[in-house]
Amino acid sequence: MSENPIDSINAVIEASVPALYGMGVRAAEARPGFAASTVPIEGNGNHFGAMYAGVLFSVAEVLGGVLAASTFDPTKFFPLVKDLQISFRKPATTDVRAEAQLDDETVQRATADAAANGKAEFVLDAVVTDAQGVTVATTHGIYQLRALRAS
Amino acid sequence: MSENPIDSINAVIEASVPALYGMGVRAAEARPGFAASTVPIEGNGNHFGAMYAGVLFSVAEVLGGVLAASTFDPTKFFPLVKDLQISFRKPATTDVRAEAQLDDETVQRATADAAANGKAEFVLDAVVTDAQGVTVATTHGIYQLRALRAS
Repeated sequence: MSENPIDSINAVIEASVPALYGMGVRAAEARPGFAASTVPIEGNGNHFGAMYAGVLFSVAEVLGGVLAASTFDPTKFFPLVKDLQISFRKPATTDVRAEAQLDDETVQRATADAAANGKAEFVLDAVVTDAQGVTVATTHGIYQLRALRAS
Repeated sequence: MSENPIDSINAVIEASVPALYGMGVRAAEARPGFAASTVPIEGNGNHFGAMYAGVLFSVAEVLGGVLAASTFDPTKFFPLVKDLQISFRKPATTDVRAEAQLDDETVQRATADAAANGKAEFVLDAVVTDAQGVTVATTHGIYQLRALRAS
């Protein structure tokens, strides 16, 4: 048996993006076309007792990477974020969970584009909810899938 | 002599937004209508050797608070971010600095609105530059200035 893919993704986050891991952001689910992530409220509060905006940004933004890891071939491609808009809907006062998905057509188009041109864009919309299921933030992100250079 | 206002602002960040302080985000300059902030690359890298997106978001987003602290009366008002769009222009591989400003007319309008209605919106555009002065990210943020409730 290979190790749990979520554990592998979190090990990569810990090793390569320590600021994100240090906030407590974790991949929670990852399969082709779907990803979820979580972050605790503990240590992540702000000046009015809600979760800091940069933590909400991060738990949503990371989904581009988590989803890419389970959707595209990580030996051929890596993702990067180009532009992200976040709307803060309600103060988050509990641990939160973010989710995002990509449809098959977008996955196939991005894979083909990145293979042919070295890069492709994909749009990812994420929803961040609190422990009661209330939407606390939504994001609209434009990511790029880059082909790894042959070495 | 009172203490340095920047030290006071950074003390508030440390006490009330520990995730932000932990990244190394610091207020660097603050006067009415102008604010600057910094964050080091050390500890803030990502999976391709540049500064993590959530750190770039945070060093820019914090300017809404830093600028508000030096522009509006903190005994009467506090700021919160409602919506922020960030565009990643170039990979940041050095410490970075963010700057933003508000013109007098906007400051006066927001102050009057918040005093009259309990809240006011203001738009803040920030620019994040690397050690060579290259723009690595720009943000367009919509903030709310909220009147503190009488207790």
